[in-house]
Amino acid sequence: MIVAMQETAREEDIQRVIDHLIRMGFSVHRSTGVRQTVVAAVGARVDFDVRNLEVLPGVQEVHRISAPYKLAARSFRPQGTEIRFPNGVSVGGEQVLVMAGPCSVESREQLFTIADHVRRAGARALRGGAFKPRTSPYSFQGMGIEGLKLLREAGDKFGLLVISEVMEISQIASLLPYVDILQVGARNMQNFNLLRELGRVRKPVLLKRGIAATFEELLLSAEYIMMGGNYDVILCERGIRTFETYTRNTLDISAIPIIHKLSHLPIAADPSHGTGLRDKVAPMARASVAAGADALLIEVHHDPERALSDGAQSLYPEQFSKLMSELQMIASAVERKIA
Amino acid sequence: MIVAMQETAREEDIQRVIDHLIRMGFSVHRSTGVRQTVVAAVGARVDFDVRNLEVLPGVQEVHRISAPYKLAARSFRPQGTEIRFPNGVSVGGEQVLVMAGPCSVESREQLFTIADHVRRAGARALRGGAFKPRTSPYSFQGMGIEGLKLLREAGDKFGLLVISEVMEISQIASLLPYVDILQVGARNMQNFNLLRELGRVRKPVLLKRGIAATFEELLLSAEYIMMGGNYDVILCERGIRTFETYTRNTLDISAIPIIHKLSHLPIAADPSHGTGLRDKVAPMARASVAAGADALLIEVHHDPERALSDGAQSLYPEQFSKLMSELQMIASAVERKIA
Amino acid sequence: MIVAMQETAREEDIQRVIDHLIRMGFSVHRSTGVRQTVVAAVGARVDFDVRNLEVLPGVQEVHRISAPYKLAARSFRPQGTEIRFPNGVSVGGEQVLVMAGPCSVESREQLFTIADHVRRAGARALRGGAFKPRTSPYSFQGMGIEGLKLLREAGDKFGLLVISEVMEISQIASLLPYVDILQVGARNMQNFNLLRELGRVRKPVLLKRGIAATFEELLLSAEYIMMGGNYDVILCERGIRTFETYTRNTLDISAIPIIHKLSHLPIAADPSHGTGLRDKVAPMARASVAAGADALLIEVHHDPERALSDGAQSLYPEQFSKLMSELQMIASAVERKIA
Amino acid sequence: MIVAMQETAREEDIQRVIDHLIRMGFSVHRSTGVRQTVVAAVGARVDFDVRNLEVLPGVQEVHRISAPYKLAARSFRPQGTEIRFPNGVSVGGEQVLVMAGPCSVESREQLFTIADHVRRAGARALRGGAFKPRTSPYSFQGMGIEGLKLLREAGDKFGLLVISEVMEISQIASLLPYVDILQVGARNMQNFNLLRELGRVRKPVLLKRGIAATFEELLLSAEYIMMGGNYDVILCERGIRTFETYTRNTLDISAIPIIHKLSHLPIAADPSHGTGLRDKVAPMARASVAAGADALLIEVHHDPERALSDGAQSLYPEQFSKLMSELQMIASAVERKIA
Repeated sequence: MIVAMQETAREEDIQRVIDHLIRMGFSVHRSTGVRQTVVAAVGARVDFDVRNLEVLPGVQEVHRISAPYKLAARSFRPQGTEIRFPNGVSVGGEQVLVMAGPCSVESREQLFTIADHVRRAGARALRGGAFKPRTSPYSFQGMGIEGLKLLREAGDKFGLLVISEVMEISQIASLLPYVDILQVGARNMQNFNLLRELGRVRKPVLLKRGIAATFEELLLSAEYIMMGGNYDVILCERGIRTFETYTRNTLDISAIPIIHKLSHLPIAADPSHGTGLRDKVAPMARASVAAGADALLIEVHHDPERALSDGAQSLYPEQFSKLMSELQMIASAVERKIA
Repeated sequence: MIVAMQETAREEDIQRVIDHLIRMGFSVHRSTGVRQTVVAAVGARVDFDVRNLEVLPGVQEVHRISAPYKLAARSFRPQGTEIRFPNGVSVGGEQVLVMAGPCSVESREQLFTIADHVRRAGARALRGGAFKPRTSPYSFQGMGIEGLKLLREAGDKFGLLVISEVMEISQIASLLPYVDILQVGARNMQNFNLLRELGRVRKPVLLKRGIAATFEELLLSAEYIMMGGNYDVILCERGIRTFETYTRNTLDISAIPIIHKLSHLPIAADPSHGTGLRDKVAPMARASVAAGADALLIEVHHDPERALSDGAQSLYPEQFSKLMSELQMIASAVERKIA
Repeated sequence: MIVAMQETAREEDIQRVIDHLIRMGFSVHRSTGVRQTVVAAVGARVDFDVRNLEVLPGVQEVHRISAPYKLAARSFRPQGTEIRFPNGVSVGGEQVLVMAGPCSVESREQLFTIADHVRRAGARALRGGAFKPRTSPYSFQGMGIEGLKLLREAGDKFGLLVISEVMEISQIASLLPYVDILQVGARNMQNFNLLRELGRVRKPVLLKRGIAATFEELLLSAEYIMMGGNYDVILCERGIRTFETYTRNTLDISAIPIIHKLSHLPIAADPSHGTGLRDKVAPMARASVAAGADALLIEVHHDPERALSDGAQSLYPEQFSKLMSELQMIASAVERKIA
Repeated sequence: MIVAMQETAREEDIQRVIDHLIRMGFSVHRSTGVRQTVVAAVGARVDFDVRNLEVLPGVQEVHRISAPYKLAARSFRPQGTEIRFPNGVSVGGEQVLVMAGPCSVESREQLFTIADHVRRAGARALRGGAFKPRTSPYSFQGMGIEGLKLLREAGDKFGLLVISEVMEISQIASLLPYVDILQVGARNMQNFNLLRELGRVRKPVLLKRGIAATFEELLLSAEYIMMGGNYDVILCERGIRTFETYTRNTLDISAIPIIHKLSHLPIAADPSHGTGLRDKVAPMARASVAAGADALLIEVHHDPERALSDGAQSLYPEQFSKLMSELQMIASAVERKIA
């Protein structure tokens, strides 16, 4: 940690800072410059709140030197993490995994129709929501366990991995028999009790970035899961909230190269939630792969006008097929393959 | 709902929109203008996703006419909601309730020292966290039930209402015997299952605005609680995330008059979390009361440099006393009283 | 315009709204519903401030129906605008124009070295700043007219179009003899006097989106230029300001498909300013082309560590060459060609 | 400057950073820790682009230690700046200067009616726009010099200082004979050539914060003016752009205590532009004074429904009078007086 003192700081202010740091267990090095004094502190604590120093008299600014996360940092595994599934699919290596399907599981017929289509178009994982609490209390809330069973059945029939969202600790046990990847939604990115429990699970977790979460916060949330021993975390950009309201969210494509620099974990993109509008999904899916995404989450529905949730952002099957061929070409341009 | 068609929309596009609206149960009125056609739809559904229309060919824009919330809207109780407590304190009327105390309950001695002080300075409610999951997995996580017991004891001894945060459905039962107000934190503002359970409780709920939540989303979350029959909801502005990083968050003081216009529910402000820095707390507390806030949440600690959480944003006792006298004067300027 | 009245609005409130609209020259249609009254207003005025209605008693919300811009709207030229240059290059058609060069022109040797390289790598336009007022008053401020002459000379020698930034009305005359495209920077996007003057020019203008500008504001600024008769406007996404500070700005790739829907004007992307960091430029350039960008602005420097401005975001020549081959492949995936 | 190297940085990476710093004229101090190396650099340059280091191999992060502005920093004049006008009014001392008047000067009758009213209600300065380029090219654009003459005349008649906006270098000479304070609008906050010229003027400048400008950028812009020798700069918060669109902008009240800490310059607030809606102006004006604002800019119009610009955010005269009495009481609570 580096504490820069104000030019007007008095000797007693500097001593107070040094004492505070020593009491917190840091080793301290003081540099007295012509204009100002700088105090450097080194130590093992990562949970230190820098604001405790910022509010001391005479302090100008405080900078953390080391990232507050360790296991999620690139330096922990400089070569990157590749998560391998039994069916030969992997995330974080050469393949770009496409996970497609409806927003919500609505019925067997709906799910199997869509699963059949996305598999033939080249997707290797099936997405679908079973528990759907919604912004409005008046909306459809999901099929629950019944939906999970259908997902597993469709996954097995069409050779697709299954991913579905877990919203509460109590749902983990229900989901585990049916899914290959547990998804944590943007609103739960900082539900730390849930993350801690997912650290005890031995299945990969896809962790979505909150709509107002910084990269550091996203990586700290991944750290919560990894601390429990579950290192198979896939991060996912799904749009952030900005001043622009034309789209629901602004899909932050730059998250892809930035996460690749900061962390060894794979990074996915969800252009469906990231834009909220069907005609923006294909351009943003292409952009994600061009920027180096390791995976995509895409909503597809065979009859989106009648979908019970998020129909407006679901692709028609034929749009999805066309997109998949474009993605194949773009993937080769960046030396990847669509899986 | 109003659907404005593009100037270039074809007759079949217009018919598709009309058919879609009728299928969703709306009554439709069509106005054909010189430049464009406008379709107005009226009906009882509030859970309609306007994007389903936005993505149809020929549609230019879609506007909801009525707010998606009902119970939380000002029109539901034009005179406003006043929540009365047995000890004569109320929120939403003439009194401005000040809820003060430490970020986390750390020990009996800490809590009682602080409670004694804030009561003598004029606060009528004691705040304190018992369950503290933190951004970093390496930080102090709270005293749990033991903390709740101490809060109740201190509240009873000093004549203070008690408010503490509930983070999960499973904690509701633990909190109920000890607190007068259940607080929902910003990160749980859209934890809809938790909100729904709080609708069944018969104690007031203080609901904090998420750091990236719009006013509409905040009111929809209040609606979730009210739908269950619990109409005693206090909203709370606690800072939003903006591009400026000098403070942790930007306390949006304008939320106060805006919520007063949109809703009948009382609105509190939390300048401690809203700024994150001690020397900004008093100015922002004063600003909140001047803007019409119905209540304040303020962190106070007798030894903030040794606080286990958020010490940097806690006032020293003497700062709190001085602030309380300033607030008394400001409250009279707006025809209110500090309670 | 649609004015939705509150459920509690009185008849006199409704009449006041209607009178106000009539006085402003609108034709009014009133719909009295079960719950609320809605007033629709039709007319030719585009400069109406909807807030004048919003503040009237009894008004719930007001929605504009038609976009406040006309000439920049897609409906003005549904087939899109293609801007053709004498050397066979065009923007807005099949070709994706790459405009590359240094941030600032620093010397003949610097400029010619870079121009030679980017031309050989496939760029067809040379960018370079001559006037460089900077955020800090202590930084390098540009070569001025001398820089423009060098740009023209290099452009002619290597067969490159020339683009450079105009910052004030008084500079237009100086730039015109030397450049093929006049660039308006993000900070001048709402310098309306400058825009109006550029409407009188007969050379294309590249208009950058302000860092906090909505799409509507960007298109209104384009409208200012077009009103003067200059329809050759290229819009440019160059990053918006969000809560995330890891990169200088967040390049909003979704602007590309959104502008294509709202407007007939071509849209470029500037991944150099949009990210501010060299290693993010190539991924974001690829993403832009994959999303459908009509042009790219890319900073290249043969010795970026010694560049007088923005060296950190300039590509090394060999990085640029590699990027150009990737872009060729991505362009084919979306049925375009790099020009 | 502090450069923290990655844990995996090689010796040659560290040397490259050190060489780069030395070449830029810094003195360098290297600390080799157990986990990582930290390089501290000290020197006189303030225009250094830290990104030049951030992009070097092996660099983890770079922190500036000293603020990039000097003259605007609190340390330059720890006791604060008080700007005194001949009529006994001052800004930055005990008085809180209220500057009130119409958005645009529309006619002699309009201006004199309003000036008479605001003077009697206690304002000591008259605001009014003469040059009004607008977001939409189809709106009213101001009375120009004629408006300035009316402002001076009204100011002299009613004993009010006059403030009006300057939008271009060429307007400075026109404004100087008529105004006491030159206002720079939010869109011109980074029009560096204009700022530089205003540094040569010997009248106070009120500099508005851009809607997406950080405090550091605002202070750098003040620095531009002060470098020319004009130290009489009043900063002004007028609302920032956030994700919330209910109000035009979000008035950032916390800017007031923050600027007071970072700078010696007075800080004003403009609740009219900061909210854009009349019924939010009074609460936000009160909040600004409660938070310590040194001045207020408030729009008042005797017939706002017929105002040619921004009528929706203008107070009625009687609202302004009521507000002024509330402000008197709030000012005493913070040991100030309304002037």
